[in-house]
Amino acid sequence: MPLELSFQSNVFAVETLDLGGGVKEQIVRGGRHLFPLLPQAFEGISQIGVIGWGSQGPAQAMNLRDSLAGSEIRVTVGLRAGSSSMAAAEAEGFSEADGTLGEMFDVIRESQLVLLLISDAAQAELHTQIFDALSEGATLGLSHGFLVGHLSNVGASFPAGINVVGVCPKGMGPSVRRLYLQGVDVNGAGINSSFAVEQDIDGKATDQALGWSVALGSPYTFQTTLESEFKSDIFGERGVLLGAVHGIVEALYRRFIEEGMAHDEAFRHSSEAITGPISRTISKQGLLRVYEALDADERQIFERSYNASYPTSRTLLEEIYDEVSSGNEIRSVNLAGERLKRGVMGTIDRTEMWEKGEAVRATRDEDAIPLDPFTAGVYVATMMAQIDVLMENGHPYSEIANESVIEAVDSLNPYMHARGVAFMVDNCSTTARLGARKWAPRFGYLLRQEAFPSIDHDQMPEEPAMSRFRDHPIHAALAACAEVRPSVDIFVE
Amino acid sequence: MPLELSFQSNVFAVETLDLGGGVKEQIVRGGRHLFPLLPQAFEGISQIGVIGWGSQGPAQAMNLRDSLAGSEIRVTVGLRAGSSSMAAAEAEGFSEADGTLGEMFDVIRESQLVLLLISDAAQAELHTQIFDALSEGATLGLSHGFLVGHLSNVGASFPAGINVVGVCPKGMGPSVRRLYLQGVDVNGAGINSSFAVEQDIDGKATDQALGWSVALGSPYTFQTTLESEFKSDIFGERGVLLGAVHGIVEALYRRFIEEGMAHDEAFRHSSEAITGPISRTISKQGLLRVYEALDADERQIFERSYNASYPTSRTLLEEIYDEVSSGNEIRSVNLAGERLKRGVMGTIDRTEMWEKGEAVRATRDEDAIPLDPFTAGVYVATMMAQIDVLMENGHPYSEIANESVIEAVDSLNPYMHARGVAFMVDNCSTTARLGARKWAPRFGYLLRQEAFPSIDHDQMPEEPAMSRFRDHPIHAALAACAEVRPSVDIFVE
Repeated sequence: MPLELSFQSNVFAVETLDLGGGVKEQIVRGGRHLFPLLPQAFEGISQIGVIGWGSQGPAQAMNLRDSLAGSEIRVTVGLRAGSSSMAAAEAEGFSEADGTLGEMFDVIRESQLVLLLISDAAQAELHTQIFDALSEGATLGLSHGFLVGHLSNVGASFPAGINVVGVCPKGMGPSVRRLYLQGVDVNGAGINSSFAVEQDIDGKATDQALGWSVALGSPYTFQTTLESEFKSDIFGERGVLLGAVHGIVEALYRRFIEEGMAHDEAFRHSSEAITGPISRTISKQGLLRVYEALDADERQIFERSYNASYPTSRTLLEEIYDEVSSGNEIRSVNLAGERLKRGVMGTIDRTEMWEKGEAVRATRDEDAIPLDPFTAGVYVATMMAQIDVLMENGHPYSEIANESVIEAVDSLNPYMHARGVAFMVDNCSTTARLGARKWAPRFGYLLRQEAFPSIDHDQMPEEPAMSRFRDHPIHAALAACAEVRPSVDIFVE
Repeated sequence: MPLELSFQSNVFAVETLDLGGGVKEQIVRGGRHLFPLLPQAFEGISQIGVIGWGSQGPAQAMNLRDSLAGSEIRVTVGLRAGSSSMAAAEAEGFSEADGTLGEMFDVIRESQLVLLLISDAAQAELHTQIFDALSEGATLGLSHGFLVGHLSNVGASFPAGINVVGVCPKGMGPSVRRLYLQGVDVNGAGINSSFAVEQDIDGKATDQALGWSVALGSPYTFQTTLESEFKSDIFGERGVLLGAVHGIVEALYRRFIEEGMAHDEAFRHSSEAITGPISRTISKQGLLRVYEALDADERQIFERSYNASYPTSRTLLEEIYDEVSSGNEIRSVNLAGERLKRGVMGTIDRTEMWEKGEAVRATRDEDAIPLDPFTAGVYVATMMAQIDVLMENGHPYSEIANESVIEAVDSLNPYMHARGVAFMVDNCSTTARLGARKWAPRFGYLLRQEAFPSIDHDQMPEEPAMSRFRDHPIHAALAACAEVRPSVDIFVE
């Protein structure tokens, strides 16, 4: 059963997006022409505190400051006393002298809207002190439902006297900033966001959230709950957004070499194919087009690869969804946070494959990257399996489309295309980096242990998953989502 | 801080095992000459119900029946109504006609000692009904602390009016049976067990547990708690016992091929080396001997491989220990139990490596298997890292030695040696099979991502882990454990 959601705004125009098959969702379109409405959305707010300087912190602080330029509303960055990020924030123009930079608890106390963008582990550790520091009637903003999941794990809740809202960009911080800057030339360029109202004590929470999202540059903003958000988000990044795509290209690269390809050719047919033509095709023309762009022989290869990979990826994605829903992944992240105080996260791109990839990129001819049909079958099957798991768990279509497809091809894969897997994964949150490291190997092993032998031994699953691909409701949903965003390519060097 | 443990027996001789460095643990040595004491240990018990027919069920039911032959005590197998294992139990001589086979809840109600050997997931699902069926004053026996961990997760506890004991063989069921049968010729042959007394309402729990262990054929029985047991057991099988050894040989096999070895040679230098000469050397002569058997050049290779692998394996083992201690792994197993009702676990040995392995085994010359020093360094380093994690978490030395070394080289690796990785992993419990599938890929990836590049790029860790290898307290502990067991080789076809 899908979530039943609806909202009203006193400030922004609410539109209805028809996602096909009778599914409709309310959205707010963004754009720079709406920035003059922000003071109205933020009525009663004189200072927005942006707490933290990780992946989302710098992007959101700068976007908000730029969007609110000329208004009376100050954007102030709050960091832990002695934080090594202080210098980075100063380099971007935030300063203690003019009150736009300060100690995090001071900033929390003094702000009417507090955007809590510190790491998930820090949120779990510090939430009690943060709740105590919030002024009565303030609004707590989250860009991720993690804290909701953690509070549920430990049987705690938000303080009663505050608003709690979420605005969750469907892309890493650097993309949120980069596309916002492109919005100068193409109005509405940016990363889509979901929003959620968890607590609304004064009737202002919805417009505060929408204002925040518009100020970030979201091309469109759709509704969710923070529970639905954290489940789809933590699941999605462990799946096709980061973990699965890493495991998939590792397995494919090895397979192609075992089949006799040269190493650079194997890299082109695996990683380059996905981050190049496959992602580009999905982004501009949809999932079906990847298949339709193939000739008859290639389609047969795609079909076998899809049919063998779908059940394998699906099984693993169901496991990941259970691990996220049960609170296990959140507990794991918190446990890892403790261990990381004693050491650092290891590197994932020192292997021969990624060293070879660097050489391949250095001499890349973008047009010569093959749209390998076997690779496409594995990748699209995994994407579809992720979509199906989210649909069966009742997530909003916009959330599904963004967490499974749009964020992958428009926000994340361009990073892998530019500088390899670690550049993509390690530009994300600690929660995402941990999850990608945890699950990528599972995808890699399972594809090699189950899907590829099924193809090689001609023991294909009885029910071909491809039979549900052509008429899948996701295609109409993606087309509808594509219509509400301006066509801007993310470009990463 | 190590656990403080002690016990007394009214039936069996309690000895003190000196494990070196001032560490002493109480143990009971087993042997067939003690079987006449069993009726005394089981005083007041007329029926022992063995519930379940998985890995441990058949072995324990048969060993108990054989050990109690000629006594008044009946051993009765209890299975779910309509269980497909009914025929298997009948084939081993249990029958409804003579009261040695029945419906599980009937058997539970009628037995004074109930050995609950159903799967962990089934224990989690059925424990309330099982507790209700136990007669007042009965003794509940567990061969694994899983249920203790699960009860803690859900905030439940055992009924007050029963004894609760654990006897936990440090090997899979088939080994428990196989070595017991060898005990006909070599008195005391068997698999070591730990025992624990969780609840003792009548002062009989300790001797009931010791009697159970002696009847199983345990060469020696050492004390633990069910909490310490489930942590070390679930951790150990995810580590070097199953998950790590699988991931290690996958990573090594691939490395050797990339270095130019033929596939059969790569299999011999990775999997065969570990399950053959390395395991044999550790079993008969201890861990140090693996290193000492090498020449000067080989020792250098071992040292580099050890120093690079230890920190990588250690980091991952700490993660696994946290996941087990926090209850996450137990929750994962229960969630997987639900999913497995809709499907089956995938196979892990259809890849090229294991197909090649089959061919290698078919023409094996046992004496020609190389003790590859690189492979030995990775494997021994991982074993030592596991030992260190358990020591730092206060586990008894006997438990550490058995869960990290003895079970590996004497009980499990012989199965992989005989018929490959799936024959080892899939002869174990569902909890173990799930855990091995979950963590093996992590070991494989991390070694390739971190340890091997450190060697190849000559970026070795600053503090060499080898410096703590020679004088490690585990060597004396293993030597002490070796003295209390009869020298019997497990032989698997």
